[in-house]
Amino acid sequence: MNVNAKHADERRLDAQFAFLLEADRLKQVIRATTLADGSRHENSGEHSWHLALYALALADQAGPGVSIDRVIRMLILHDLVEIDVGDVPIHSANGTAHGSAQVTAAEAKAADRIFGLLPTDIGADLRALWEEFEAAETPDAVFAKALDRVQPVLHNIAAGGGSWKDYNVTFDQLDARVGQKVARGAPAVWTYVRKRARGFFDQL
Amino acid sequence: MNVNAKHADERRLDAQFAFLLEADRLKQVIRATTLADGSRHENSGEHSWHLALYALALADQAGPGVSIDRVIRMLILHDLVEIDVGDVPIHSANGTAHGSAQVTAAEAKAADRIFGLLPTDIGADLRALWEEFEAAETPDAVFAKALDRVQPVLHNIAAGGGSWKDYNVTFDQLDARVGQKVARGAPAVWTYVRKRARGFFDQL
Repeated sequence: MNVNAKHADERRLDAQFAFLLEADRLKQVIRATTLADGSRHENSGEHSWHLALYALALADQAGPGVSIDRVIRMLILHDLVEIDVGDVPIHSANGTAHGSAQVTAAEAKAADRIFGLLPTDIGADLRALWEEFEAAETPDAVFAKALDRVQPVLHNIAAGGGSWKDYNVTFDQLDARVGQKVARGAPAVWTYVRKRARGFFDQL
Repeated sequence: MNVNAKHADERRLDAQFAFLLEADRLKQVIRATTLADGSRHENSGEHSWHLALYALALADQAGPGVSIDRVIRMLILHDLVEIDVGDVPIHSANGTAHGSAQVTAAEAKAADRIFGLLPTDIGADLRALWEEFEAAETPDAVFAKALDRVQPVLHNIAAGGGSWKDYNVTFDQLDARVGQKVARGAPAVWTYVRKRARGFFDQL
């Protein structure tokens, strides 16, 4: 290997590790949802791990044509933009903040910066997966979104209300803001979880 | 669908969600390594996410025949047994605790319990992946192990010593306990990281 090629390899690894060290900051982004035992709020790094495990454990609930491996890749990447933008809870601002034009623009800028730390080829591949997740149109993205939405429902039930209490959420709001997206990607999962959420709200 | 089939589907989802709620506890298993900024210790849930991201960002460092998707699956699962056994730091007990017969037996028992929460078919598949990782013989497992070993090195350098200070680790011990396993799965990564670790120890 000549000296220039060696320098190019080192520069490539410099970029790969710069990205991986920056990504570490996602462990300090705090979400509205708590751990299942309610002991503390969850961070977006551990949340992303948990969702990848959801994809492995609930793979049989994915629709035809879904690649669980692509779903897992999306879930690993899906919250990286929160390093710059923070978590925008589904139920905050009465359900209007998440997905607003302002947040969407800030997340695109964050994606420019964060995926831009990587060598160009890797950054382009990972950013394309993140954009596919955000667009929520392909079967893989629709299933990934369903998992992202359903996990907090399980935690709120287990923790005695969690972010539903913090944001005064009603069952109908949950059904509209969360249920529709879970049902779109994993209908039998929503039937199962909705019954338990209904039971939780009924005994309030 | 008849009533019995419906009950079977519900029982299957009961088992899937029992596993996913139990897995949440991995976020409370604290590791010897800190975050890169040294602000707190890392937990094994967020660590597992970070390693999956390592696999995505360093995929070009994998040897021939490595499936990055299988590597990612292993990394998502690899620490679940710590829910029962806790993290056993590489450098604890002067390097003798990690991989001891006692720890290995405890981890096998933990795997029985934790993967046993799942429906039998899913539990058997995921446990086989975990065992493949532990055996560290296949190319996928060897690469996954290399990533698991190298991430703390980056964090210790970034944080000014981290677990190396806590356990009085020398550069030669690092080279033996960590370097060999990183070099086996990702030789160019170890060449790159070793130089930086060498520089860190030299200025102590």
